[in-house]
Amino acid sequence: MRKGFLLIISGPSGVGKGTVLHDLMNTQNNLVYSVSVTTREKRPGEIEGVSYFYKTHEEFEQMIKEDKFLEYAKVHNNYYGTPKDFVINKINEGKIVILEIDVQGALNVKKNFDNGVYIFLAPPSLSELKNRIVNRGTESEEDINLRMKNARKELQYINEYDYLVVNDHLNSAINLVNEIINAEKHRVSREDINFEKGE
Amino acid sequence: MRKGFLLIISGPSGVGKGTVLHDLMNTQNNLVYSVSVTTREKRPGEIEGVSYFYKTHEEFEQMIKEDKFLEYAKVHNNYYGTPKDFVINKINEGKIVILEIDVQGALNVKKNFDNGVYIFLAPPSLSELKNRIVNRGTESEEDINLRMKNARKELQYINEYDYLVVNDHLNSAINLVNEIINAEKHRVSREDINFEKGE
Repeated sequence: MRKGFLLIISGPSGVGKGTVLHDLMNTQNNLVYSVSVTTREKRPGEIEGVSYFYKTHEEFEQMIKEDKFLEYAKVHNNYYGTPKDFVINKINEGKIVILEIDVQGALNVKKNFDNGVYIFLAPPSLSELKNRIVNRGTESEEDINLRMKNARKELQYINEYDYLVVNDHLNSAINLVNEIINAEKHRVSREDINFEKGE
Repeated sequence: MRKGFLLIISGPSGVGKGTVLHDLMNTQNNLVYSVSVTTREKRPGEIEGVSYFYKTHEEFEQMIKEDKFLEYAKVHNNYYGTPKDFVINKINEGKIVILEIDVQGALNVKKNFDNGVYIFLAPPSLSELKNRIVNRGTESEEDINLRMKNARKELQYINEYDYLVVNDHLNSAINLVNEIINAEKHRVSREDINFEKGE
């Protein structure tokens, strides 16, 4: 069976990662979201192993010691991490595992997993990114300035990625990500090559 | 401006390289065929710089000495070669340069040009390849056996390529090559990244 791969979709806050991913999940077969491990409380409606894998602080720190994460981070006193085993098992089942993650997280994953496909989703320009964040209408001016400061920093890391997809028109960005997935599926390194010897 | 790249389409004789390429040239912009250098006589209707670049034996051998070829071969007392300058100039103009070439030639190019995109076009099976060659009705049994012997050898080299495209149904093979081209156009290594600093 042909192996799957890890597809990292990353880029600045506000660029539209979530929207691109929702559409991808509806148009491509064989995709699964990476399920994170967290120490935060389970909320009503969430499902173990689907929303998150829920662990205690002690369990999480034990997993860190045992090198069980592709990356992890502590946010507001809770841990969040991407579990290696889940990703590798799904890849071995032939799945394409999608990881939507910020730039810092993607760079951390890359240190542990060089075999992934790294896509940087970029805004057409910084001024357009600012428009999008402002038009959400949910952020204070301080928040907006912080996001823009981070975005400028994050754009410096594009060279660490494999592909650059500019999210100018949503449909063309989604088409391009689909084309990248189909191309990557046919990489020789992932093919299970087996021609019969005779004829 | 975004740079182009060298796209090598290779695979066994009879697999359908020519058909795939004709359709590609009609559906993708920005493609140019690599023009070979040859010492053979110009035939009626051929055009210098379009069909071939025509050189004398002495000129060709001088070019070999000056390392001007990505690959060359001698066939029936005439030289044929892929000129480096032409390929590199077109790439710098943003073009995707298509080189349709046998497996031996592709492996020679790869020694000189690791930056290309290497596609192996394969038959669905060896028996199907034999059917296609037989159905052409132009080859003797000896020819057919020789082609099959070569094909079996050539399939051993798939691992040297970037992508494997199985030419089962012509349309899906062409779609896949188009998707590979579009994905490769958006490789970060080929992008001219330029976000304005301010907003």
